Amino acid sequence: MKLWSMPSSGNSYKVRLLLALLGRECEIIDVEDSSPELAEAKAAGQLPFGKAPVLKLDDGRLLPESNAILCWLGEGTSFVPADPFLRSRMLAWMFWEQNQHEAVIAVRGALRSYPSRRHLATPERMAELLERGHALLQVMEDRLAGHDWLVGDAISLADICLYGYTHTAGSKGGFDMARFPGIMRWLDRIAALPGYRGLTA
Amino acid sequence: MKLWSMPSSGNSYKVRLLLALLGRECEIIDVEDSSPELAEAKAAGQLPFGKAPVLKLDDGRLLPESNAILCWLGEGTSFVPADPFLRSRMLAWMFWEQNQHEAVIAVRGALRSYPSRRHLATPERMAELLERGHALLQVMEDRLAGHDWLVGDAISLADICLYGYTHTAGSKGGFDMARFPGIMRWLDRIAALPGYRGLTA
Ligand SMILES: N[C@@H](CCC(=O)N[C@@H](CS)C(=O)NCC(=O)O)C(=O)O
Ligand SMILES: N[C@@H](CCC(=O)N[C@@H](CS)C(=O)NCC(=O)O)C(=O)O
Repeated sequence: MKLWSMPSSGNSYKVRLLLALLGRECEIIDVEDSSPELAEAKAAGQLPFGKAPVLKLDDGRLLPESNAILCWLGEGTSFVPADPFLRSRMLAWMFWEQNQHEAVIAVRGALRSYPSRRHLATPERMAELLERGHALLQVMEDRLAGHDWLVGDAISLADICLYGYTHTAGSKGGFDMARFPGIMRWLDRIAALPGYRGLTA
Repeated sequence: MKLWSMPSSGNSYKVRLLLALLGRECEIIDVEDSSPELAEAKAAGQLPFGKAPVLKLDDGRLLPESNAILCWLGEGTSFVPADPFLRSRMLAWMFWEQNQHEAVIAVRGALRSYPSRRHLATPERMAELLERGHALLQVMEDRLAGHDWLVGDAISLADICLYGYTHTAGSKGGFDMARFPGIMRWLDRIAALPGYRGLTA
């Protein structure tokens, strides 16, 4: 297997984290934002939707979308609940992550980090993203205040998925994480897992 | 089963369409944007992530997120491919829909339709969404120019999911659909399915 992966991106990191937790070998090809390597991978048709991450199977088939890659790698492991309803709740968190959480939490981080986006970071936009992000983090807090994991009583792909951009929501996104003690304990729980690797590891 | 469903929304419509194609009975509770019924459902804790649609099973369990509901209803039917890789490709389109397509195609439609959002529809924003939307529709066209369906050679949840906002991309979103003949044929193919129902049916 080969993974086109953006070192600084939470979407790519999710997949690197699951690979590490599963102890699976995978060749990693770094394609940083705006890099020649990224442009090359796009031009060579390796990125079906024009974005990283993309997993290439040994037979050459390509799979885009971080969360679809998590599902592919997680199938048949303890990261996917056996119960069909819990599996659907897991997917619900993952769709919510792509539609709501990533669109606010990751986007605010990107506006603060990538020089190419700084002109879009108007004070009004940053204030609106801050408020919406706190409301989204509260949705996670409501669950994690009373439970160890997002779905059922075991870790699942939903936790790996949402860890991606939540664990840098304070440092990169500028969100006030002290308001969310349940999330903070959950972040620690994940960082303590055997095989864990950090974003820059 | 009960479905909290927003009549004007593509996310809710996807679920109503799959129910119709499967011939499944479901009580529909209309919660239009900014309506008292929507506020009531939120206050009563019926919408776990604060949004419609939400499916309530007969035993009371709640499932949010349109695409997770599609997966729940589709499980074990011909709308989910048996092959695990095709299933992952189906999910890839569905995550892409929530992260890219909905965020541009649906959002531009909403900015044009809902009076409460009109102040956000600046000419710069509308022009940017138009350009990004045409690029996203081109990703679908690249596939549909040479294939009947988005995944493998049969209809799947990916088609139902993307039909939701694509079939009104011209009328509501203002996108130039004449550029995408493969998409237009695919839209006709879906509208001709036995049991099909339209957005306002
Ligand atoms: N929904 C996609 C999003 C992927 C995505 O947005 N990737 C960004 C980095 S976070 C990217 O490849 N950007 C490079 C570009 O668009 O040129 C996923 O979850 O994999
Ligand atoms: N990712 C969600 C999005 C749902 C969503 O955004 N629903 C909107 C209508 S399209 C809603 O309920 N808006 C009402 C509100 O936020 O008050 C899904 O696919 O179900």
